[in-house]
Amino acid sequence: MEAENKGIDQKLFEHLNAAYNKSSFYQLLGLRIKSLAPGKAEIVTETAKKHANSQGMVHGGLLMTAADSAMGNAIRTLGIRAVTVDCSISYLAAAEFGKDILAVGEIIKSGKNIFFMEAKVWGDEKLLAVAKATFYKNGVIEV
Amino acid sequence: MEAENKGIDQKLFEHLNAAYNKSSFYQLLGLRIKSLAPGKAEIVTETAKKHANSQGMVHGGLLMTAADSAMGNAIRTLGIRAVTVDCSISYLAAAEFGKDILAVGEIIKSGKNIFFMEAKVWGDEKLLAVAKATFYKNGVIEV
Amino acid sequence: MEAENKGIDQKLFEHLNAAYNKSSFYQLLGLRIKSLAPGKAEIVTETAKKHANSQGMVHGGLLMTAADSAMGNAIRTLGIRAVTVDCSISYLAAAEFGKDILAVGEIIKSGKNIFFMEAKVWGDEKLLAVAKATFYKNGVIEV
Amino acid sequence: MEAENKGIDQKLFEHLNAAYNKSSFYQLLGLRIKSLAPGKAEIVTETAKKHANSQGMVHGGLLMTAADSAMGNAIRTLGIRAVTVDCSISYLAAAEFGKDILAVGEIIKSGKNIFFMEAKVWGDEKLLAVAKATFYKNGVIEV
Repeated sequence: MEAENKGIDQKLFEHLNAAYNKSSFYQLLGLRIKSLAPGKAEIVTETAKKHANSQGMVHGGLLMTAADSAMGNAIRTLGIRAVTVDCSISYLAAAEFGKDILAVGEIIKSGKNIFFMEAKVWGDEKLLAVAKATFYKNGVIEV
Repeated sequence: MEAENKGIDQKLFEHLNAAYNKSSFYQLLGLRIKSLAPGKAEIVTETAKKHANSQGMVHGGLLMTAADSAMGNAIRTLGIRAVTVDCSISYLAAAEFGKDILAVGEIIKSGKNIFFMEAKVWGDEKLLAVAKATFYKNGVIEV
Repeated sequence: MEAENKGIDQKLFEHLNAAYNKSSFYQLLGLRIKSLAPGKAEIVTETAKKHANSQGMVHGGLLMTAADSAMGNAIRTLGIRAVTVDCSISYLAAAEFGKDILAVGEIIKSGKNIFFMEAKVWGDEKLLAVAKATFYKNGVIEV
Repeated sequence: MEAENKGIDQKLFEHLNAAYNKSSFYQLLGLRIKSLAPGKAEIVTETAKKHANSQGMVHGGLLMTAADSAMGNAIRTLGIRAVTVDCSISYLAAAEFGKDILAVGEIIKSGKNIFFMEAKVWGDEKLLAVAKATFYKNGVIEV
């Protein structure tokens, strides 16, 4: 399944996808970009046995990584590089194995250096986690 | 390197180690228990290229997963199962590749059902991240 | 200005308003209920010099108290008492003096004992703060 | 009871105290500086009926305001002005009426613009709340 460009510069879109797919951590976890829109990113993965924690459940670290990555890429759709300063995540429900989880990251407010972000992580129609984060701009993306 | 038992019941110690090593998510990420003490757990991994994000840095999701896992196992040293309700993490510094990161989880306060937890993630002597979390008891561990 | 009942039991509505107006902390700060709907509460105050911090700005503690109180009362509209376990708040913009601030609290998900809540704090049409909190049920409200 | 200078420039100490005591929000709540040390601030108040929420307990907003203010002043001891970007607080125990609560704020790490802070709020020897916050530098203090 191809990532979908929902309205950002096509060169930037291709650059962000290539960078994402080259990330060994995202490959390891099976995360990929589903779509990029101005100020918004969707990250998806199919949960599998490799994501199981010591209690046999999908590890929250997967959801948190997907949420963080959705928020970071939402900023990158603006051509801006930023790093996570802090993130607060709440786990509402356990993810099920063998199903897609979808993390949707969006900008609440962008300042000069500080970005206030939020993310929701969905499993089918069920809300699994909500996150709120602060990012700090550390450069621009040269395409 | 063997995990070290710093004062919990030996059967419980072996049970928690076996469960940890069986977790496919921890194997995938390369996380393992360094030590367990009453109300305290240390989780360690050596950072490697597989942990790189799309900017070529160690992904914060690794630190967050290590912190979460250190806090969860700190509770388990009491023979109690608990799940993460929410977690707030601050990223102070980037982790370096090829070095150990150490997550130390501890109980701030334990209630009847709610556990207030904190974790620090270290790279050598450098503090990389601090986390604070709430866990909810969902059972006891039968050894 | 009277508080508005947007669809909860009228006796409960009157009970919650009376309890709110009796709270000396809310009186001190000038906070009052604007409306209560099932699972949702609006808290309002007009900012004044009494809310100034040492830098001459409206203190974030006012926004946080309004947000916390909006989330707590959103739960109480269900006839349930709950206390704040933890709360994460982000400050997007400074509040102006002499204007209303409005905190809107809502339930994201309610469990048996745990409530996942969110709040937004508005000044006119401007978003000033967003908050996310976990509450723990500690009883029911007898009307 | 006078505020204690534990090692910062005396002129800065007097400036910070004067600014604090002039803040109408802190006067309203009864908060005052107990001590200032390099990178550390203690804020104190005696809880009273005026701090009661609608359930008749000391309102968490008081603890949060004390914690926020302790963290902000810990930064100001360095001669730096900063505003709260976000704050996460956990409530461990209820404060009792008629007793002192003491908020201790400290710097975890200071960057060029970003400050990572923590605070603990004590009632006698009992830990009531722990907080973690990010502040953003917005100027220097001219004494």
